[in-house]
Amino acid sequence: MSTEKLVVIGGDAAGMSAASQAKRRRPGMEIVVFERSPHTSFSACGIPYFIGRVVTAEEKLIIRTPEKFREQDGIDVRILHEVQEIDATGSRVRVRDLKSARSSWESYDRLLIATGAVPLCPELPGSGAADIFGVSTLESGLNIHRRLERGDIKRAVIVGGGYIGLEMAEALVMNGLEVCLIDRAAQVMGTLDQDMGALVSRAVRDVGVTLYLEETLTAFETAAGKVTGVVTDKRSLPADIVILGLGVRPDTAFAAAAGIPLGEKGSIRVNERMETGTPGIWAAGDCAESFHLMSRRPFYVALGTVANRQGRVAGINLGGGYATFSGVMGTAVTKICQVEVARTGLQEKELRKLGIEFVSAVIKSRTKAGYYPGAGDITVKILAEKGSGRLLGGQIVGMEGSAKRIDTVATALHAGFTVEEMINLDLGYAPPFSPVWDPVVIAARAVAKML
Amino acid sequence: MSTEKLVVIGGDAAGMSAASQAKRRRPGMEIVVFERSPHTSFSACGIPYFIGRVVTAEEKLIIRTPEKFREQDGIDVRILHEVQEIDATGSRVRVRDLKSARSSWESYDRLLIATGAVPLCPELPGSGAADIFGVSTLESGLNIHRRLERGDIKRAVIVGGGYIGLEMAEALVMNGLEVCLIDRAAQVMGTLDQDMGALVSRAVRDVGVTLYLEETLTAFETAAGKVTGVVTDKRSLPADIVILGLGVRPDTAFAAAAGIPLGEKGSIRVNERMETGTPGIWAAGDCAESFHLMSRRPFYVALGTVANRQGRVAGINLGGGYATFSGVMGTAVTKICQVEVARTGLQEKELRKLGIEFVSAVIKSRTKAGYYPGAGDITVKILAEKGSGRLLGGQIVGMEGSAKRIDTVATALHAGFTVEEMINLDLGYAPPFSPVWDPVVIAARAVAKML
Repeated sequence: MSTEKLVVIGGDAAGMSAASQAKRRRPGMEIVVFERSPHTSFSACGIPYFIGRVVTAEEKLIIRTPEKFREQDGIDVRILHEVQEIDATGSRVRVRDLKSARSSWESYDRLLIATGAVPLCPELPGSGAADIFGVSTLESGLNIHRRLERGDIKRAVIVGGGYIGLEMAEALVMNGLEVCLIDRAAQVMGTLDQDMGALVSRAVRDVGVTLYLEETLTAFETAAGKVTGVVTDKRSLPADIVILGLGVRPDTAFAAAAGIPLGEKGSIRVNERMETGTPGIWAAGDCAESFHLMSRRPFYVALGTVANRQGRVAGINLGGGYATFSGVMGTAVTKICQVEVARTGLQEKELRKLGIEFVSAVIKSRTKAGYYPGAGDITVKILAEKGSGRLLGGQIVGMEGSAKRIDTVATALHAGFTVEEMINLDLGYAPPFSPVWDPVVIAARAVAKML
Repeated sequence: MSTEKLVVIGGDAAGMSAASQAKRRRPGMEIVVFERSPHTSFSACGIPYFIGRVVTAEEKLIIRTPEKFREQDGIDVRILHEVQEIDATGSRVRVRDLKSARSSWESYDRLLIATGAVPLCPELPGSGAADIFGVSTLESGLNIHRRLERGDIKRAVIVGGGYIGLEMAEALVMNGLEVCLIDRAAQVMGTLDQDMGALVSRAVRDVGVTLYLEETLTAFETAAGKVTGVVTDKRSLPADIVILGLGVRPDTAFAAAAGIPLGEKGSIRVNERMETGTPGIWAAGDCAESFHLMSRRPFYVALGTVANRQGRVAGINLGGGYATFSGVMGTAVTKICQVEVARTGLQEKELRKLGIEFVSAVIKSRTKAGYYPGAGDITVKILAEKGSGRLLGGQIVGMEGSAKRIDTVATALHAGFTVEEMINLDLGYAPPFSPVWDPVVIAARAVAKML
């Protein structure tokens, strides 16, 4: 009897989580992972901190090397190997060895697609020029880092004020660059409502970033194949380097070509066990579809936590166990210099789109007891359904100790709690940690009064 | 038609929360608060930080003065007035003006008892000597502070290693004192399991406190009416000052004398709206009984958060609204120098007493991504029901950013989640805040493997 063979495409969070889980549960299984970059299991979320020199060595971002996976876990990881085609009928993939440039077919019993996502790059004049960077792989981070090391970069323009854009803006300020950021919206951080986003815009300006809001990118200026500026509908900005923070798209073109059904925003449609619509083929991570627990609709999100959770579920199932991915709550946190930002659930524009009527309240409080040294400001917004009081979402902007309070709101959302049930939560209080009523509960109380 | 008159006994967290809520809802109501100390609405939890000189002025601990309550809220607060007797049949209380030493009767339509709790003091030889202090009222904190200011205090002995004992031990070390702490148990912080308590014992020793564990207090040594030492079953320790951290008992003797039914540990039995068994009489705060949501049994706990929540509920009901107190989850947090300590739900000894079979896991992780600067150690213990996997409790000991993670566990307990549901929570992740899997989820995963 031959051993079962699992082929994994992509050796980052989802792929390697799944491979490790499957191997642990079924040690006899043959597992081959193809990864086109030179790295496995790195922290993409750490790249801005590496570029900002908060994290000092690139090795620190690598959670586990291909060698360790091979030697300690018995997983055959082949870096610099790109899967170019899936033959679902023949149960095989065509793989190109990027060093030798030779292609060959590799058969599988089961296949996991964990190819992740690629940064969105607008099709605009000059978009192919050098020194325009997206941020996704560790390689892309190293490229930016190496480019900055050369020392001739003075002015940076960031396009897009989401998580990556803002984190990179701060990182480049810390490199001593003059940094401009343009965004089409009225405030940065479009995953927050505008009132909360305005607090983040202010924090970004305080760091020294020049913001151009409600401006649309129209072209890149170039000279000798290198970017020299960014053109918006209102001005042109000189730039030695441009960072794209316009979001990502799932890397699924070759999956689609193999007839694997796609879903939300071109991500691979999966069931709760992470199986695609094509027998024997599974998907997980930034290339796979998710499900939003509040909107109860398919949802696409590219986040390390989700990739790890989906990878774990796929791996348990591929290893002969049973697990389901329950979906996401839309939770995300980040930090812009001293200001922490967090959100979960649905925001106003999502609620309007879904036709859900809501009330909301924004409160200002402190991160510790008011009299305790180091207490900082925290602003919390809570949204709840009109009438029922069912929690719908929460947003937090504040100083140290603010962001992870979102976990309480996220857990309450998972539980389907109303604001009244949230007020009744028995949360931890001591002067170094919180006012007597935790700020998230103060916000829930403010909403309760409006119901 | 005469206005309704509410009399409140006790002007701290529960009493003043209730008075404010009631007044806001029914502005025409006459509200009289009798408080025997000179202060209202102070932060008892802040006393150790005031004594440890982390908080520099006593005024900072006062949340709202009697004058403000009178002038801004229209609540008639009478400080230095002690209620000595309740005449439930005649709907009146006998009040002693502590300045004039005169007593008089005050009638009420409705009465709220919010007398709080008093520190336990063992009936042992010498226990009446000077310089033996309990910690409860702001006055008691000021007394300790004044005593330390006189400068002749070198050696302190703390009796009892719970929250107050440990916080006071640290505060006295910060005053430059030589500090010993004795506790009958094998580890300090008996509200944690022994394995987790051992981490706290170590932290306390690291601060410079000498611990004598598994020792029982037998007597106080005295000279000229002042304490000079503490005697245990194993040694005698010289002491210029002794702090009692043996817990508290509800201050309910005069309520019992009036025939008001008592419950757990002598606290006043109340229904969910905070009504006592005697018509027209309500109770809230450290003098009132609570309900433990995990054990589903009456429970007594003296904590500022619970007092505030109970006071709010009593006030809403007394003001003509409707609210219920849903109970407690046993959540508590504290900080011993750099080490944060948190617990929620039930601990091993409580589970054994209830006959609940459980599995548990203890994991070590980091407070931030491992590569992010300032990441500290965090140890998390999760307990779950054998078979069902239902969460039963959690305990955390770790560096900055550890303690408030207990809120996620507490909220999951409120929701009745299993460890598998906890693993599926969509929590916030970014390198400055957490590893990809939050430490509380890593612990839940470790427990899930044991089910």
